[in-house]
Amino acid sequence: MKGSVLIGQSGGPTSVINASLAGIIEEALQNPLVTNVYGLLNGIDGLLEHRIIDLAVESKETLSLLKTTPSSILGSSRFKLDDYKINDKVYKKIVEIFTKLDIKFFFFIGGNDSMDTCNKISQYFKNIAFECNVIGVPKTIDNDLVYTDHAPGYGSSIKYIATTIAEIYQDIECYKKGKVTIVEIMGRDAGWLTAGSKLASLSNNGPDLIYLPEIPFDLEDFLHKVKIIYEKKGHALIALSEGIKDKNKNYILTYRQFNSCDNFGHLQLGGVGQVIAEAINKKLNLPIRSIELNIPQRCSSHIASLTDINEAYHCGKKALQYATLNFTGKMVSIKRVSTYPYKVKYELVDLSSVANKVKAVPMHFISSDGCNITNDFIEYALPLIQKEPKIVYTNGMPTFAKLKKQKINL
Amino acid sequence: MKGSVLIGQSGGPTSVINASLAGIIEEALQNPLVTNVYGLLNGIDGLLEHRIIDLAVESKETLSLLKTTPSSILGSSRFKLDDYKINDKVYKKIVEIFTKLDIKFFFFIGGNDSMDTCNKISQYFKNIAFECNVIGVPKTIDNDLVYTDHAPGYGSSIKYIATTIAEIYQDIECYKKGKVTIVEIMGRDAGWLTAGSKLASLSNNGPDLIYLPEIPFDLEDFLHKVKIIYEKKGHALIALSEGIKDKNKNYILTYRQFNSCDNFGHLQLGGVGQVIAEAINKKLNLPIRSIELNIPQRCSSHIASLTDINEAYHCGKKALQYATLNFTGKMVSIKRVSTYPYKVKYELVDLSSVANKVKAVPMHFISSDGCNITNDFIEYALPLIQKEPKIVYTNGMPTFAKLKKQKINL
Repeated sequence: MKGSVLIGQSGGPTSVINASLAGIIEEALQNPLVTNVYGLLNGIDGLLEHRIIDLAVESKETLSLLKTTPSSILGSSRFKLDDYKINDKVYKKIVEIFTKLDIKFFFFIGGNDSMDTCNKISQYFKNIAFECNVIGVPKTIDNDLVYTDHAPGYGSSIKYIATTIAEIYQDIECYKKGKVTIVEIMGRDAGWLTAGSKLASLSNNGPDLIYLPEIPFDLEDFLHKVKIIYEKKGHALIALSEGIKDKNKNYILTYRQFNSCDNFGHLQLGGVGQVIAEAINKKLNLPIRSIELNIPQRCSSHIASLTDINEAYHCGKKALQYATLNFTGKMVSIKRVSTYPYKVKYELVDLSSVANKVKAVPMHFISSDGCNITNDFIEYALPLIQKEPKIVYTNGMPTFAKLKKQKINL
Repeated sequence: MKGSVLIGQSGGPTSVINASLAGIIEEALQNPLVTNVYGLLNGIDGLLEHRIIDLAVESKETLSLLKTTPSSILGSSRFKLDDYKINDKVYKKIVEIFTKLDIKFFFFIGGNDSMDTCNKISQYFKNIAFECNVIGVPKTIDNDLVYTDHAPGYGSSIKYIATTIAEIYQDIECYKKGKVTIVEIMGRDAGWLTAGSKLASLSNNGPDLIYLPEIPFDLEDFLHKVKIIYEKKGHALIALSEGIKDKNKNYILTYRQFNSCDNFGHLQLGGVGQVIAEAINKKLNLPIRSIELNIPQRCSSHIASLTDINEAYHCGKKALQYATLNFTGKMVSIKRVSTYPYKVKYELVDLSSVANKVKAVPMHFISSDGCNITNDFIEYALPLIQKEPKIVYTNGMPTFAKLKKQKINL
């Protein structure tokens, strides 16, 4: 099968999602079965608005810069596709556009939700016998995709988190009587990112306590532990997942005492650090500081992991290779061959087995007291943050790729 | 005059305060007038507890690593010295210890408060004709020290801020309908750090609006501007100083509507971003996100400016040179010789003229509408963030210097 390539990005961005894009484009440009290489702006939303660009016109320099450019350069969307058995309007539109542009290879770079979209499109194509191979390319800082050792994007996020935790620890340590410092880390349902803070312990700058959503959070026990640490050290550093819950599965965020008089109707989850800070301040009367790492966790490409960038890039390349070998309805997955030395290979898994599932942090990565992380995790995660990319600086700041965005007329 | 060197650090840490320490030590080790090189742990607090260490035992490798190790490695303190005319108890203790250790050259690396301490000690020494030269070495991320073109520490902070703003902009731009994103930046009394966010505009990723404490903040006018920007672009990025005030000089932070029912007695200033976010959400009904850059602004040495590191280092070296040339009661200051090409020299200013003063951002750095920054500022600040240090990575994270902390018996 010969034809055009179309690539889209979806869901929350990462530091390396554009490295996967670069991998697909570079592989496509040298594959004789590929006639054109197109990019889809803002995912399915953009498709419905005919916002498709030519990616074959981009320079080698731009493609190279994509590897260190954060955020989804094609634009993202959170479009939820209906089941085609209920409503096939959007599907018909997709087929119409794909036919016009002779799209034979479709790639969607995204997380669990995006793999669901990818799966639905692939199923529909099969059902109507429409010839187009659909391959999902994994990305998510959350690392909660199933059937892959880890997800591209995760390594760079925890390199940022571990580095930042180590720097913060260095900072708070400089006063004899310092503060209790809370660092709130992303991850609503799974604690992978928060666990990453543990890597800072390799430079003796790790958090004193680490709490993930996987383990019920007990405020009284927590306060007791904080008191002991502070009395001994004069400071304490605590890494908290934004998604920690109590034993009744209530988010600790809902303990917010000022909930009644503020009205952050549309605010994101976040702020649990402040709730905990308030509790420490009120109940232990200790000086506190709460730091929310926020979106720099997913876009700090200046401290990205080169291992992660390379893997994201290869996931893209492999996706193109598999699609032209006539695979469809699959996601590229990373399989760890060995940890010492660290070696991976790229396989395929069924999109249907990945879509909408969440992989929690396994119990052997969490210490038995529920407030720290084990060496098993360190062994798992450490290879993912190794090596640094060469960042191109302009004016003292990292240079980002800018696409020509040459529109395709439909 | 021949004798021992004693070095202390004080006030809030920076990414490059240890580079100044390295500069003093390296220069001291090769100066024939210096008999010993001592470090003071936790500033004046540590002095009173006889916590003094030998710095001459540190390896070349450690001294080199100091240049990229954030936070005050000797430990800091916020000790406020009484006027010696009111209470000279601490001063007598200082003289007693300095006599025992034959301290003839005393260096204090710090900001305005620390220069006040330095000035008081120097005045006291003069008054009792105690032979010891006292030199202050500037550092502050706030850049509010007078009589110096800029302060070591500032360049690295705004390199971090500009890079992070550029990355955040890249991130928020990826959705067609995104959020209004507030980035809260340090600086209670002066807007130097917040102004630094403007540098991201050189990569077209700068904030849409920038507010400093120097200009009264008008909430209604602000909301009006945000609405227009959001309607046009589908997102907006706003950089806010934590210290913005209204025309009656009330901190905007005090507009916090839930002040009555929470009780953050000991909390730091911070959180104005949330107040503004709430206002946008309630009054404009727009989706918002508030990001507080917090202490990574002063400790993200992995993205430090090499220009800043080198200047901090040279301030240290020059301090030692001047002290051994018998200068005392002075602070090393950076004088800009030219901007194209960027060139500085190191001079001395009287400690008494620097102590406790605050340098505001001048009006020609702020746009006439009060919500943006001019090219004059860019011209001033851009040289300060140029070049990157070679970071030594261990386990995929930056390596920090660790001192032997070999205690001196008194």
